[in-house]
Amino acid sequence: MKPLRLGIAGLGHVGCGLVELVEAQARLRLPEHVSIRGVTARDRNRKRGADVSAYDWFDSAKALATDPDVDVFVELVGGADGPAKDAVEAALRAGKPVVTANKALIAEHGMALAGLADAQGVDLLFEAAVAGGVPIVRTLRDSLSGIEVTRVSGILNGTCNFLTSQMLSTGRDYADVLAEAQKLGFAEADPTLDVSGTDAAHKIAILSAIAFSANLDFSKVSISGVEALDLIDLTFAERLGYTVKLIAEGVLTEGGVVCRVEPKVLEASHPLAQINGSLNSVRVEGNPLGAVVMTGPGAGGGPTASAVMGDISKLFRTGRRSAFGHAAHHPTRDFIVPDDAESAPWFLRTQLADVSGALASLTDTLAQAGVSIDKLMQDSADAQGTAPVAIVTHRCPRSNMAQAVNQLAQLSSIAGKPRLIRIEMDH
Amino acid sequence: MKPLRLGIAGLGHVGCGLVELVEAQARLRLPEHVSIRGVTARDRNRKRGADVSAYDWFDSAKALATDPDVDVFVELVGGADGPAKDAVEAALRAGKPVVTANKALIAEHGMALAGLADAQGVDLLFEAAVAGGVPIVRTLRDSLSGIEVTRVSGILNGTCNFLTSQMLSTGRDYADVLAEAQKLGFAEADPTLDVSGTDAAHKIAILSAIAFSANLDFSKVSISGVEALDLIDLTFAERLGYTVKLIAEGVLTEGGVVCRVEPKVLEASHPLAQINGSLNSVRVEGNPLGAVVMTGPGAGGGPTASAVMGDISKLFRTGRRSAFGHAAHHPTRDFIVPDDAESAPWFLRTQLADVSGALASLTDTLAQAGVSIDKLMQDSADAQGTAPVAIVTHRCPRSNMAQAVNQLAQLSSIAGKPRLIRIEMDH
Repeated sequence: MKPLRLGIAGLGHVGCGLVELVEAQARLRLPEHVSIRGVTARDRNRKRGADVSAYDWFDSAKALATDPDVDVFVELVGGADGPAKDAVEAALRAGKPVVTANKALIAEHGMALAGLADAQGVDLLFEAAVAGGVPIVRTLRDSLSGIEVTRVSGILNGTCNFLTSQMLSTGRDYADVLAEAQKLGFAEADPTLDVSGTDAAHKIAILSAIAFSANLDFSKVSISGVEALDLIDLTFAERLGYTVKLIAEGVLTEGGVVCRVEPKVLEASHPLAQINGSLNSVRVEGNPLGAVVMTGPGAGGGPTASAVMGDISKLFRTGRRSAFGHAAHHPTRDFIVPDDAESAPWFLRTQLADVSGALASLTDTLAQAGVSIDKLMQDSADAQGTAPVAIVTHRCPRSNMAQAVNQLAQLSSIAGKPRLIRIEMDH
Repeated sequence: MKPLRLGIAGLGHVGCGLVELVEAQARLRLPEHVSIRGVTARDRNRKRGADVSAYDWFDSAKALATDPDVDVFVELVGGADGPAKDAVEAALRAGKPVVTANKALIAEHGMALAGLADAQGVDLLFEAAVAGGVPIVRTLRDSLSGIEVTRVSGILNGTCNFLTSQMLSTGRDYADVLAEAQKLGFAEADPTLDVSGTDAAHKIAILSAIAFSANLDFSKVSISGVEALDLIDLTFAERLGYTVKLIAEGVLTEGGVVCRVEPKVLEASHPLAQINGSLNSVRVEGNPLGAVVMTGPGAGGGPTASAVMGDISKLFRTGRRSAFGHAAHHPTRDFIVPDDAESAPWFLRTQLADVSGALASLTDTLAQAGVSIDKLMQDSADAQGTAPVAIVTHRCPRSNMAQAVNQLAQLSSIAGKPRLIRIEMDH
């Protein structure tokens, strides 16, 4: 089978991430092989994160889009109009499927482009346009097509989320925090699209069009951003038990689809209140489902490139995939019985008998097994005279712990078999 | 276009949920129409949640699976062996695609069945077998095929999660809480599959086979459940700042895929520590993605039936779907500009000028606009002599609040424009 040949227009973080993924495709689970027919970007001589000198350079996105040896045109140029739109239209007109990460293009011209794709009988895919590495677009379109969606909402702009989190944690004003974020590269030199809510609005408009089979009309979206928030709004909300987040939502109402982006005050227990930093999170509510939430990296070259690759994987002409997605050319792994070598912190709980030196014999036994103690809590003895004790260890192999537990079980100062539970840290 | 004709074997909660979804399909977003060719279940006369008298009754799952007028065989019988397996094999041998919710069947015989499906060139789909309404199977197989997965983990059994949560919140022992859960229908009469960890093991084995292109071998999965947990393990863990959860995980190691189900002690800040009740949550870690988490209802007739329907929606022979998933027969909605009628609680923050009666004029103005106050917090005046005040209102229309804000802005006792933010409650 010939590999699927990509034409990649745009070589920023996402484009370079995609080139790297193509080069590392043996580690992925693509149904077939993929190759790069050619690349293009605004400035050929700019220093990039990936070496693209091995690939044919095209002088324009449009020329690449219509090259007869390109099977799939990948548009990573950006911008609602101009060269990105021209090239995508040219590719579709030439009967080529298009994969794009361009949220502005899809939010502003998605209906017309989808119509063009339908007329040509080719796919227009844009997983990477919404929520970076979080594959919500196809999940909503296909896997959740068996539910009636009533609302889709989420945190869809990492920059806004970062700014409000930083204001609150540092006690500094919006302008201060924005300036620092720009210096660190967490906000664009011109942050308007992000902080005005427009970027989140592009994304929620796309999701709403899918969720409600709606005619996307971006002019109807109500948008306000985070620029007008004062530090005191955030601190007072927090003192009252709330969190302020920029929330994007699309709701099905009797009159039609209402799409809105605005800061909201969330109860601290609200699932979206916990979404911090550059994470994106999307919540889909519907019947008879209840709600499903998807959370992950909302930006970044690697995650976004992986979403582009997920779309590309659906364009192979092989048709049906095997039930578990295995392909003949994948390295296949075997299940193995776990050994006990893996290292972790451990939670050990036992009961000390009512004898003197019970705690000392416990800690001695652990020390001899090479187990070192991080925390220890002993409570007073119960009616039977045994005292519960819990220990949190530093990292050590499961085998050491198993040995320690066996030895403890033989001590007369220990009542009953100790309980051993692995601790998993947040990461 | 003729509808896709289903043969539905098994009419429990999921089967009846599916019948209802087929009957309500005008509200869904299926690419084409679907109909029911026939149904079957163990006992024809049992009282059911859905009226199936309009559909042809078949005397066996196998007869239904091989009926020439069935386009898709839906297996909701359950059990790793016996009639479910026989019928699925018969359907595949007859060249029919199969959709199943049967985790035991797929975990124990999935490789052989996938091989049979491949040989016959038909689909074997099992979204509903893992995590109920959470569409993780196809997301992992297809959308995330552009990442190298290093670990997949999660909370995959709602019964275990319910039992440990209940023990902790009521201070009662395992046996007590289990007996009550059985009485309430939250645990099966024979809860062994759930509480032993076997059900979660079935699910994580399926996800691991997909994530790592691995030969599923259920005999290699290491399984321990929640039966052995004592209340004191949970309370001590909590007092040390942790939460105990039954965690299923599959990890890619040098030697192969290690699959394990066991109770774990999680840091309170761990994303899975917040997953309560019957929710399921799956976390996929990989390169260059980072991590994506999907959370939703892990069981229940409606959610699980919606997952079955999501699989069915992929079996239509129409091929390519339109970019936004719109189909000619869908009712299409329009985007509309939001009106201000929607009712919500509101967060109002403003600054009181340094004049007497400032707070009174604020609260009077709100009362006149029909806005009633739930909480109010005023802080001491700043260097300019203005005192910040925040108000949380009871539910009222946005239009009332807008009117109140306009009136407040005109008061000499209010410094600057008040800030109005909608409050979203946890739900």
